[in-house]
Amino acid sequence: MKIKVIVTLKNGVLDPQGKAIQQTLNGMGFSEVNQVRQGKYFDIEVGETDENEAKFKVDEMCKKLLANLVIEDYKIL
Amino acid sequence: MKIKVIVTLKNGVLDPQGKAIQQTLNGMGFSEVNQVRQGKYFDIEVGETDENEAKFKVDEMCKKLLANLVIEDYKIL
Repeated sequence: MKIKVIVTLKNGVLDPQGKAIQQTLNGMGFSEVNQVRQGKYFDIEVGETDENEAKFKVDEMCKKLLANLVIEDYKIL
Repeated sequence: MKIKVIVTLKNGVLDPQGKAIQQTLNGMGFSEVNQVRQGKYFDIEVGETDENEAKFKVDEMCKKLLANLVIEDYKIL
């Protein structure tokens, strides 16, 4: 079973990479772009047939490895 | 209006970073993880009130900057 996870920086945490992308887009003529925030995406293939069980496992992985909860939030899709 | 984009490696393109994460998870006791693929996530704040217009703009940004279409796919959420 494939579980998708998105890890994003918390609001208020500076995102220089996103800022650089925004400035580049503005410079390319996309002047309507006001802000870009970049995050990470994970596609995790878990050997579980039960969706809830798989999501529970992935939640643990997020807490232990994939996300730094001090500065990041995660969302399991 | 905020538009979310996910950029992933195409199937068949090697993902050493995902592989490293998978091996780390396995080593941490998550032995049921068979594969991990990592991608990028963007939260783009576009100064457009019309959703279709905003998505059209973001589609152009993906083609021109955010995704490398030779090895990556993108999905606008």
